[in-house]
Amino acid sequence: MSDGPTIYATEPLQVYLDDAASKKPAPGGGSVSAAAGALGAALVSMVCNLTQGREKFADVETEIVALVEKSDAARVKLEKLLQDDTTAYNGVIDAYKMPKETDAEKAARKAAVQAGLVIAADVPLEICRVAVEVCRLSKTAAELGNPQAITDAGIGAILGEAAVVGAALNVRINLEDCDYTIAAAAEIDKIQAEAAALRAEVLAITLSKL
Amino acid sequence: MSDGPTIYATEPLQVYLDDAASKKPAPGGGSVSAAAGALGAALVSMVCNLTQGREKFADVETEIVALVEKSDAARVKLEKLLQDDTTAYNGVIDAYKMPKETDAEKAARKAAVQAGLVIAADVPLEICRVAVEVCRLSKTAAELGNPQAITDAGIGAILGEAAVVGAALNVRINLEDCDYTIAAAAEIDKIQAEAAALRAEVLAITLSKL
Repeated sequence: MSDGPTIYATEPLQVYLDDAASKKPAPGGGSVSAAAGALGAALVSMVCNLTQGREKFADVETEIVALVEKSDAARVKLEKLLQDDTTAYNGVIDAYKMPKETDAEKAARKAAVQAGLVIAADVPLEICRVAVEVCRLSKTAAELGNPQAITDAGIGAILGEAAVVGAALNVRINLEDCDYTIAAAAEIDKIQAEAAALRAEVLAITLSKL
Repeated sequence: MSDGPTIYATEPLQVYLDDAASKKPAPGGGSVSAAAGALGAALVSMVCNLTQGREKFADVETEIVALVEKSDAARVKLEKLLQDDTTAYNGVIDAYKMPKETDAEKAARKAAVQAGLVIAADVPLEICRVAVEVCRLSKTAAELGNPQAITDAGIGAILGEAAVVGAALNVRINLEDCDYTIAAAAEIDKIQAEAAALRAEVLAITLSKL
């Protein structure tokens, strides 16, 4: 009977899906994008776990051990962002509830809304940064991992790119005109281009190894 | 202490992610693709639930009621496929364990493996079919739904397309030369082209309404 936020990692998968489908404010598209990225990171780890410790792949053991450390770390970050995004907009909601009678109140409210929007944009921006890393890791998994799990490496890149593009939409919708906006827009453009290129590369490697 | 398969809908989200990352045979990329599609379908339903019953959107009420019925149905199907895919390969595994001493045993084993592969390919093929429907429904959501939830409609299409491309890889890897293969390959080519076009269209609508 806590009034704190629902901790989705410990809730049944069905609850996360049902809450995403509902009119509840969270989880929304940002959290769901982080979930897609976490699923992609999990598949990269799976490829590593099906490669590591096998004599057949002994020559890439060091690279695979390093890769699974990175994909596990990316997954932990995305699992945290999946949760963070469910409360990231709370500051904006609270700011909109501030009084707006006097000019001073209006100015304070406007500043609080803008500060809230920067936080609300910052969480999906971080999702973009980690999700493009999932695409990079998928490429190494496709190149070096057990070819029997090649489709999992491919799907890792597909989901990493989907998480980037999805979260980027949620960065853009939370942007107001300010210095933060210009820097963030430039960064997500660059990340999206890299993710798109990586998805195409990893899919090409995957199809060549089917 | 049941020895039946893990029912992932009722397991914590964390367990699904951890099992996907592990070397366990399931869930793999096929199930994870279905999960991505289910997340996309959930976002379409969310857009509907944030539109339905509001005076401002009274003129599209009938279309939105029809849309949420379809997106809920697509999600139920993808939730089932997420589970089905975790056992779809069992028939192949069992077939590989069959004796292969005599010519008759070899022939029986080969036929059983091929029958198993058709089943293993059929589940992700069905994921492709339902996931492209998620892309179609996302387009209607982007066109008619509450514009405050426009990014959720966009992310619905992104995840629908990701699910199509991911599941298509798992169809292709389970195909052997047979009539089934030719028909399935043609169908997934067509579905992938439609999903890619829809993703681009829905993203364009989304960006125009941000």
